[in-house]
Amino acid sequence: MSTNTALSRSASLPLAQQLALRFSERIQQRLILPGARLPSVRECARHHGVSPYTVVAAYDQLLAAGLLEARKQRGFFVRDMREARAPKVKAAPVQAVQAPPTPIDASALIRGMFQADARHAPGLGTLPGEWLDLPMLQSAMRRVVSQSEEPDQLALQYGEPGGDPRLRSALSRRLEDIGVHAAPEQIISTVGATHALDLITRCLLTPGDAVLVDDPGWAIEYARLSQAGMRLLPVPRGPQGPDLEVMARLIAEHRPRMYVTVSVLHNPTGNSLSLASAHQILKLVEAADMLVVEDDTYAFLAPNHAARLSALDGLKRTIYVSGFSKILTPAWRVGFVAASAQVVHQLTELKLLSTLTTSPMMDRAVAICLEQGQLRRHAERVISRLDAARQRVVHLAEEAGCQFVTPPQGLFGWLEVGVDTERLAQRMLDAGWLIAPGLLFSPTRRAGTLMRINFATSQDARFWRLLQELR
Amino acid sequence: MSTNTALSRSASLPLAQQLALRFSERIQQRLILPGARLPSVRECARHHGVSPYTVVAAYDQLLAAGLLEARKQRGFFVRDMREARAPKVKAAPVQAVQAPPTPIDASALIRGMFQADARHAPGLGTLPGEWLDLPMLQSAMRRVVSQSEEPDQLALQYGEPGGDPRLRSALSRRLEDIGVHAAPEQIISTVGATHALDLITRCLLTPGDAVLVDDPGWAIEYARLSQAGMRLLPVPRGPQGPDLEVMARLIAEHRPRMYVTVSVLHNPTGNSLSLASAHQILKLVEAADMLVVEDDTYAFLAPNHAARLSALDGLKRTIYVSGFSKILTPAWRVGFVAASAQVVHQLTELKLLSTLTTSPMMDRAVAICLEQGQLRRHAERVISRLDAARQRVVHLAEEAGCQFVTPPQGLFGWLEVGVDTERLAQRMLDAGWLIAPGLLFSPTRRAGTLMRINFATSQDARFWRLLQELR
Repeated sequence: MSTNTALSRSASLPLAQQLALRFSERIQQRLILPGARLPSVRECARHHGVSPYTVVAAYDQLLAAGLLEARKQRGFFVRDMREARAPKVKAAPVQAVQAPPTPIDASALIRGMFQADARHAPGLGTLPGEWLDLPMLQSAMRRVVSQSEEPDQLALQYGEPGGDPRLRSALSRRLEDIGVHAAPEQIISTVGATHALDLITRCLLTPGDAVLVDDPGWAIEYARLSQAGMRLLPVPRGPQGPDLEVMARLIAEHRPRMYVTVSVLHNPTGNSLSLASAHQILKLVEAADMLVVEDDTYAFLAPNHAARLSALDGLKRTIYVSGFSKILTPAWRVGFVAASAQVVHQLTELKLLSTLTTSPMMDRAVAICLEQGQLRRHAERVISRLDAARQRVVHLAEEAGCQFVTPPQGLFGWLEVGVDTERLAQRMLDAGWLIAPGLLFSPTRRAGTLMRINFATSQDARFWRLLQELR
Repeated sequence: MSTNTALSRSASLPLAQQLALRFSERIQQRLILPGARLPSVRECARHHGVSPYTVVAAYDQLLAAGLLEARKQRGFFVRDMREARAPKVKAAPVQAVQAPPTPIDASALIRGMFQADARHAPGLGTLPGEWLDLPMLQSAMRRVVSQSEEPDQLALQYGEPGGDPRLRSALSRRLEDIGVHAAPEQIISTVGATHALDLITRCLLTPGDAVLVDDPGWAIEYARLSQAGMRLLPVPRGPQGPDLEVMARLIAEHRPRMYVTVSVLHNPTGNSLSLASAHQILKLVEAADMLVVEDDTYAFLAPNHAARLSALDGLKRTIYVSGFSKILTPAWRVGFVAASAQVVHQLTELKLLSTLTTSPMMDRAVAICLEQGQLRRHAERVISRLDAARQRVVHLAEEAGCQFVTPPQGLFGWLEVGVDTERLAQRMLDAGWLIAPGLLFSPTRRAGTLMRINFATSQDARFWRLLQELR
C-alpha cells in the first residue's frame, strides 16, 4: 500500500524516488487524472515533510518517465494516459479512430473503489464485504452447481434470452410487494443494473436526444448518456425530489425524450421522492409524452411503501431498473428491467446482440435467495445495522462541524464540508482514506464543497478527526 | 412439443384448432417471421394430410386472433408481432421512439436454438450438453465458491474492470501456445465473445463506417454491425479464405475501417485461412490502414498451429476475440479480447459503462480450468469425438446425395442440398428437426440451397433419410 502511507526515511529507496513512485502509481490508477495540475513544489514539500529539492527530483523523474508535462509559468500537469501508455505503437490505426468521450472522472472513482479497502473508504459505493451474507451466497451457488437444480438447463446451455424463468417469476412476486405489477414476461435479466441502463439508452434513445437527469447524480450514468450522444439536462434535486419548476421549464424548452432518476434513496443525497412529488412528475412527463427510467438500485434498503414512479404509473411510461450489487453481492452481476411487454421485447432483441444471454446460473442463484425469503431477512438485518451506523456517523459528522444537505437516510449521506472536496480527496488519499468528492456527482464536473459519505464505512472516528484537521 | 409432432385425429382438440395452435406457437416463437407468407390452403392441406376446409378454419382462427392478415389475391401473411403483441397500450410513448433495426431473422434462429433439443437439432450452434465435461465445470465452480479461492475477492466485490488477474495471466499463457503474444494487461474479459464484439463495434467504429465481413458469415454479427449503423461489405469466402480480389476492390472503393472475420474453423463453412491467405490479407489491411477483428470462437477445436492473423501481425492492427461457449459451456458467459494496450484501455472504459465489470467468479472458474490443463485435455477428447462424428456425418450426407461446399473440418459443415433451405426448415420443423438454413448466414438474407450442419448433432440416420425424401 505504498500509495497510502507516509514516506519513509529508513526505506531502501531514496525519498525522491518514493515520492515519484507514489505519484506514478496514482496516475496509473487514475486517482490523479490526465490534465490535473500537481501541487506546487513548495506545497508538496510542506505536505510530505521533505525538502523542495526532493520534490523537484521526484517531478524530474516523472517528467522523464513521460507521466508529466511542464507548462511554463503554470506548473506540472499529468499527461493524457492514452498517449503516455502506448508510446511505441507508431501511427497505429486506432489513432485515427474517433476516440469515444470516455468518462475519465467516473472510471477514476470506480477504479479507486475496486482497489479500496472498505475500512478506509468512506466514499465506497457499496456495502462493505463483511456486511454481506457470505454463507447465504455460498449456499445458493452450491445449489446452482449441484445436481438438484437441473444442471442440463443451468450449467450447459445459454439460458433463455429474457433470463431464467424462475428468476423472472420470483422478481414478479417481489415487485408485487412494492406495488409494481409486472408479469414475468415483462421482466428481463441483465448483467447488473448498469447493463440494464445501457440497453435502455441504446434501445430507446437516439443520439442527440435530450434527457433529464438528477443533479447531483451518479457520474457513470452521466458518462453513459454523454458517450451515447445524448444532451444532459440536469434537474436540481432537493429533499422532496426534483425541482419541478426547473423540470417543467426544461421540458418546454428542450422537449426531452426521457427522465432518468433514482427516486428512492437517491445517490448521492439519500433522499426519496414524496408521494406528491411522484404524482407531479408523472403529470409532467405524461403531458410531454416522455419516458421515465426509474433506477431503484437501493430498493432493498428502503421500505416497501416508498413512493415509486413505476407503482403509480403501472409501467406504462415508466421503465423500472434494479439489481443486487447493493444488497446481495456485486460479484454476481445480476440486474433486471421491468417494463411494458413491448419495451421488454425490444430490450431482449438488443440483449442478444450485446451479450447473447446472461448466465442462467447467476440468475438462478438470485432466484433461490429471493424464493426462500433469505434475501428479505438479510435486508432487514442490513437495514437495522445501517440505522445504527447512520446514527453514529451523523453524530461524528456533526462533531466534526459538517452538515448534511438532506436528512440522512439509506446508505449515503450528502455532506457539506466547507472546503474544496477535490483537493480534500488528494489529501485524504495521502493519509490512506478514499472519499467520494462532489465532482463525481456533478453533471458539469464542478468540484464544490460537498462529498458523499457511505454510512457503513465511515464509522471510524479517526477519519472524522482528520477531516476536521484538514478543513 | 406440440409444434413438432403430427396432428392427431384422436386428440381432444379439433384438427383445425390443433393446426391453428401450431402456427400460433411458431409465430409467437418467431420461427415464422412477421411478413412471411403462409402456405396456400391446398399446399397446407396436402402437407398435413387434412382437408382444405380444416386449413381454412385454422387460418380463420389465426385471422381472428390478429396473428395473420389476408392480402387480396396473395394469401395469408404473418402480422408484425410488435403491433400484434401489445395492442392494449394506446399511444404508448415508445411508439414514437425510433425502433432499432432489430435482427429479426437472427434472433429467430437464436430463440429456436435456446429451445432446441440437441438430439433433434442438426442446426445447433454449440456442442450438445452431453459432450461437455459437467464434472470439470462443477468442480471449478465449487472451488470458486469455497473458501480456498479468496471469497472476499471473488464473492463479495465487483472484481477488477479488466477482469480477474488470474484469468488474464492464464489466457496470456494459452495465447502463447497459439503464437499470439499478449501480456495480461493486453487482455480484457467480457460477457462471452458476443460482448467483446459489441464493445469493439461501439468503441472503434463510428456509424456510417464501412466494414468488411465474411460471406457467408454469422447473422448475429451482421445484425450487430447493422444495428450500430455500419455499412456491410460482404467478401465471398472460399476454401482458402476470403476472395482477395474482391477484398482489394472493396477496400479501394469504400475505404472500410475494419475487417471482421472468423479466420479459423469459420462459421458456417468450417474452413480455415491458409498461411498465404493470412499474409495477403494483412498486406491489404496494412496498406489501407485498417483494423482486423479476428473472432476465434472455435479456437479450442482447431490445432494450435492454425494460421491466425493476430499471430502474424502481433496484435498491432489485429484485435483477437474468443470465448468459452463452444468448448466449456455457454452458461458461464465468459469471453475476452486481446489487443494493443491502447485498444484494451479504451475497451475497459466502455466495459465500465456497459456492464461495470464481469463476474469475478465466472472469470476465475475459467482460469481454474485453464491453469490445470483440464480444458486442454477436454478439448483433445472433444476433437477426437468430433472427428469420428464428422466421418459418420459426411458418409450419411453423401448417401443422402448432398455435397459439402468446402472440405469438412471442425464443428460445422456447409452443405449444398439442392432445394430452398428456408422452406426445407419449415418442413423439417414439422417433423421435429431444427436446421440452420442458408438465409441465416447471408448478409443479404438470400435463402438459397445451402445449410449449416453441426457434425455433433447430425448423426441420426433418420434425419438424413427424411432430408432425402423432402428434396
